[in-house]
Amino acid sequence: MPKGEKEGRDFGPPPTAPTVLDGLKNMYKEKLLPMEKKYHFDSFYSSYLTDADITAKPMVLLLGQYSVGKTTFIRYLMGRDFPGIRIGPEPTTERFHAIMSGPEEQTIPGNALAVHKDMPFTSLTKFGTSFLNRLEGSQCQAPLLDHLYLVDTPGVLSGQKQREGRDYDFPQVVEWFAERADLILLLFDAHKLDISDEFKDVILALKGAEDKVRVVLNKADRVSGQQLMRVYGALMWSLGKVVGTPEVMRVYVGSFWEEQCQNREFEYLFEAEETDLLKDLRSLPGNAATRKINEMVKRARVLRTHALILSTLKSQMPSLFGKEKKQRQLIDNLADTFNQIHKQHKIPVGDFPNLSKYKEQLRLMDFSKLPKVNENIYEEVDYLLNTYIPSLLDQLAEEKYAARQVAAS
Amino acid sequence: MPKGEKEGRDFGPPPTAPTVLDGLKNMYKEKLLPMEKKYHFDSFYSSYLTDADITAKPMVLLLGQYSVGKTTFIRYLMGRDFPGIRIGPEPTTERFHAIMSGPEEQTIPGNALAVHKDMPFTSLTKFGTSFLNRLEGSQCQAPLLDHLYLVDTPGVLSGQKQREGRDYDFPQVVEWFAERADLILLLFDAHKLDISDEFKDVILALKGAEDKVRVVLNKADRVSGQQLMRVYGALMWSLGKVVGTPEVMRVYVGSFWEEQCQNREFEYLFEAEETDLLKDLRSLPGNAATRKINEMVKRARVLRTHALILSTLKSQMPSLFGKEKKQRQLIDNLADTFNQIHKQHKIPVGDFPNLSKYKEQLRLMDFSKLPKVNENIYEEVDYLLNTYIPSLLDQLAEEKYAARQVAAS
Ligand SMILES: Nc1ncnc2c1ncn2[C@@H]1O[C@H](COP(=O)(O)OP(=O)(O)OP(=O)(O)O)[C@@H](O)[C@H]1O
Ligand SMILES: Nc1ncnc2c1ncn2[C@@H]1O[C@H](COP(=O)(O)OP(=O)(O)OP(=O)(O)O)[C@@H](O)[C@H]1O
Ligand SMILES: [Mg+2]
Ligand SMILES: [Mg+2]
Repeated sequence: MPKGEKEGRDFGPPPTAPTVLDGLKNMYKEKLLPMEKKYHFDSFYSSYLTDADITAKPMVLLLGQYSVGKTTFIRYLMGRDFPGIRIGPEPTTERFHAIMSGPEEQTIPGNALAVHKDMPFTSLTKFGTSFLNRLEGSQCQAPLLDHLYLVDTPGVLSGQKQREGRDYDFPQVVEWFAERADLILLLFDAHKLDISDEFKDVILALKGAEDKVRVVLNKADRVSGQQLMRVYGALMWSLGKVVGTPEVMRVYVGSFWEEQCQNREFEYLFEAEETDLLKDLRSLPGNAATRKINEMVKRARVLRTHALILSTLKSQMPSLFGKEKKQRQLIDNLADTFNQIHKQHKIPVGDFPNLSKYKEQLRLMDFSKLPKVNENIYEEVDYLLNTYIPSLLDQLAEEKYAARQVAAS
Repeated sequence: MPKGEKEGRDFGPPPTAPTVLDGLKNMYKEKLLPMEKKYHFDSFYSSYLTDADITAKPMVLLLGQYSVGKTTFIRYLMGRDFPGIRIGPEPTTERFHAIMSGPEEQTIPGNALAVHKDMPFTSLTKFGTSFLNRLEGSQCQAPLLDHLYLVDTPGVLSGQKQREGRDYDFPQVVEWFAERADLILLLFDAHKLDISDEFKDVILALKGAEDKVRVVLNKADRVSGQQLMRVYGALMWSLGKVVGTPEVMRVYVGSFWEEQCQNREFEYLFEAEETDLLKDLRSLPGNAATRKINEMVKRARVLRTHALILSTLKSQMPSLFGKEKKQRQLIDNLADTFNQIHKQHKIPVGDFPNLSKYKEQLRLMDFSKLPKVNENIYEEVDYLLNTYIPSLLDQLAEEKYAARQVAAS
């Protein structure tokens, strides 16, 4: 593949957005959201979803120590600069950049970005203004951005610089993005391998999202073949210990920028790796829809359990006197209620929330104002889980098949 | 380097055995051994050393799952078959083979090998006849064997086959060899990577000898460049977790046999790796002498502490009545004695033996027969540690320098 062409890497024609996501959006708005509101889902779990959270294009998140080539990597994929881009050998990227397709070339400051209802960033407001000042949207035109949007991040620094220079909780912000990302690229520099303690914290913030993580060993042409093997070996040796999963993370080895390959010993390998990485990126829109449906299933299951807990508590409240005392007792013995529900309704242990966090939240509520017991909710959620969502999955399979037919013809 | 030549890999002229080892042997026989005997060192720690233990050539130990190419690797290095060699795609090597230089081509059965006073295998008798039946010496002529001797091992099998098919404790035997080895090669097959639970046990038996371990990723030309990267990555990912040290083990990637390289994508890498591996082997004789001097230092320190403990105990025994009762008390309160010696003589904690094992051994002794307190021993050991051994190290440095001069001219 000749390097240096203008349009960036080839991503094929823009994919048609899976319309199945519209079905998912409607289901959420009409069925789940009213129930979530009734049971105060947002104070116990996570914020209500917006349309944009569901229909946004897949997100690719880039993470790495400073100067490993994250921003250069993005420019290479896009085949162009994005508004606000900065590249250089010292720590350069200072903000989280959400790089999205848009008719006009422009940057959008973080505070404005987070109030846009049609963008999936509204819940970032919880990190406060000091973070929002470090957030920026970049809109422009590029074939890649028809498929997905990218999040460039400030490089992780080591020691004090990272802790003091950043007036927001870096790993927590990373966790927010990682939860929502469809692909997380961890970049390393073969020429200057380093996994600082601060970067380890970032990797630990990816717990639970390991299946979405891919590793990029960048600048691999800057060292000899033997050195590359040593660096790559050392990376895997350490990474395996930090990540802890037995499944090995996929690593793409290469040099992801426009310049000619320097050490050509492994040129053929690098090309094959780049092809695979691009394939991985191209498959995102289809996989992202599946992933969103899956997340919705998880959410519905959690909601069902949550509703069961609250209505069980409500049913045990006295109708006239001693409400406060009873509420305190019920909270103290919450574990018993969990056990009872677990047995009676055969809810798997994994669907129950964290006991102490849940207790904390309950203490802020007035049980007498809880919604009445309503058997309908289990039936309704069961219907969503067992009938509605499987039909969405069928629809998705059909859409993917049709898309393949179009691509092949 | 052309493959297939007859004399095996090039190891240069036979090294002259470092005469410093003769000095070490004499020191042990004349100074340490009499003290060891006086204080029953062999029942508390390890067997007395023979001349052969000290002056034997460096040992290279090969370990790996079956069919990874251990025996083929040895044949390739030697450039010839050794007596008793068997190579094949099914589990073939059934014995531990000690392959040594010898005037006549012959095999020596394990039971005979273990009684030879001038060979370093006498203490293997503790593993019993069932193991000795699985031990064999192979003597022949090869340039490589002027430098070192090799120990080929039966391939590790998985599951029941390993546990039931072997009527001796495989990991314990491996531990015996690993303790004495100068280099341990762990072979893996890039074409069929597998780290079974049984092989993990073997790797765990190498605890404390990690600095001597090198990994060989063999048959690397049987897979494509990309596959090789995946296999190598997976190997390092798992190995790092099993070994646990932050230091990454050196891996040699290549295909170590006479046949032509199959996938030539990485040919240049494989050649460089082989060159490095041979360099590693060639440096063994010099390093082995340093290692043996180090081990002797450790041994002398342990002996000094041991003598201190025994003579402190002796000094507290009554001269006439109540000997048995006092002995029991002293053993029960052994920790106090340790603490007292630690403070009074400033012996580091690491030099003390395992408390409960030591107690067990003390119960078998009669304290009244212990040697008298003799202050000389500390002075003598101190002399060995502070004067005699440093002079041996100087001598070794001179010998190495002279050898380099000869090699260069
Ligand atoms: N594939 C590559 N090979 C060699 N050098 C590269 C490569 N990619 C980027 N560089 C160089 O590395 C330096 C850092 O690049 P870049 O600014 O893209 O890194 P970054 O990870 O975005 O850093 P930061 O975290 O500070 O934003 C630049 O000088 C760039 O030219
Ligand atoms: N570098 C290599 N590339 C490809 N095949 C090889 C290579 N080395 C050995 N082989 C083949 O692998 C098979 C096993 O070889 P060998 O008997 O040397 O392995 P081993 O590790 O000694 O096995 P065991 O543990 O059973 O003794 C043989 O068929 C041999 O020809
Ligand atoms: Mg950057
Ligand atoms: Mg063999």
